[in-house]
Amino acid sequence: MTDNIYTIEPIGKIHSILTELAEAPMQGTEGGFEAWLEVAPKFAQGLFGIKVGDDLIVLTWLHRSQRDTLQVHPRGRQEAPLRGVFSTRSQDRPNPIGLHQVTVLEVAGQKIRVAPLEAIDGTPIVDIKPVLKHERPQF
Amino acid sequence: MTDNIYTIEPIGKIHSILTELAEAPMQGTEGGFEAWLEVAPKFAQGLFGIKVGDDLIVLTWLHRSQRDTLQVHPRGRQEAPLRGVFSTRSQDRPNPIGLHQVTVLEVAGQKIRVAPLEAIDGTPIVDIKPVLKHERPQF
Repeated sequence: MTDNIYTIEPIGKIHSILTELAEAPMQGTEGGFEAWLEVAPKFAQGLFGIKVGDDLIVLTWLHRSQRDTLQVHPRGRQEAPLRGVFSTRSQDRPNPIGLHQVTVLEVAGQKIRVAPLEAIDGTPIVDIKPVLKHERPQF
Repeated sequence: MTDNIYTIEPIGKIHSILTELAEAPMQGTEGGFEAWLEVAPKFAQGLFGIKVGDDLIVLTWLHRSQRDTLQVHPRGRQEAPLRGVFSTRSQDRPNPIGLHQVTVLEVAGQKIRVAPLEAIDGTPIVDIKPVLKHERPQF
């Protein structure tokens, strides 16, 4: 059922003052920082149309994750019962893709300044998408 | 800047009555269907804790996409000016990851019935995450 393997080439990288996982808040809304998205020149054409004030979803590759983890204690609390990783936002999961909703503060060529973003410096960017206004409000 | 290549092994597949891209609505909220998420046995432990009524984000691999596309006419309208794919939800993009917000209707072992979901039958599932209630409302 899972015969195919796909490859991801990151489109860019995050530049942030956050350099250690231990400093990173669990979610952007819990004290995320400003950060720069830097897109590689070969993908820069894909940014055309992004402007200040846009709400974006940034997909990252959480490159320091444990990919063989299937159950975790939510938010690292050992007293909490184990849960399947797909019912949590743990960064440890088979395909460690991070989902970050941010607002665009500045566009400077192939660099975009955004907030709030909790990912650490050097985190690879996999994709950038606009938030759709008609999407349901829970996310 | 984008030296590293990462590999994705899908965790499962979508089973849907939608079999052709031409039938698929642009977004789930535009007439998405019920579908089953089937997770491979080796990843099934990761589902523990998912229950009926949960709002989930399903990440898929849009395996029929054009990965070398960087600009598109939004929603396929040739009269609309070209836009960078990162400012659109086009399925054609360098790393074609689909984002689908669904509600759980039924949990049956390693299969989960959800709606609304516009992905076609056989679409690989990359990840499943819960929607966080405190996330900002725009998405």
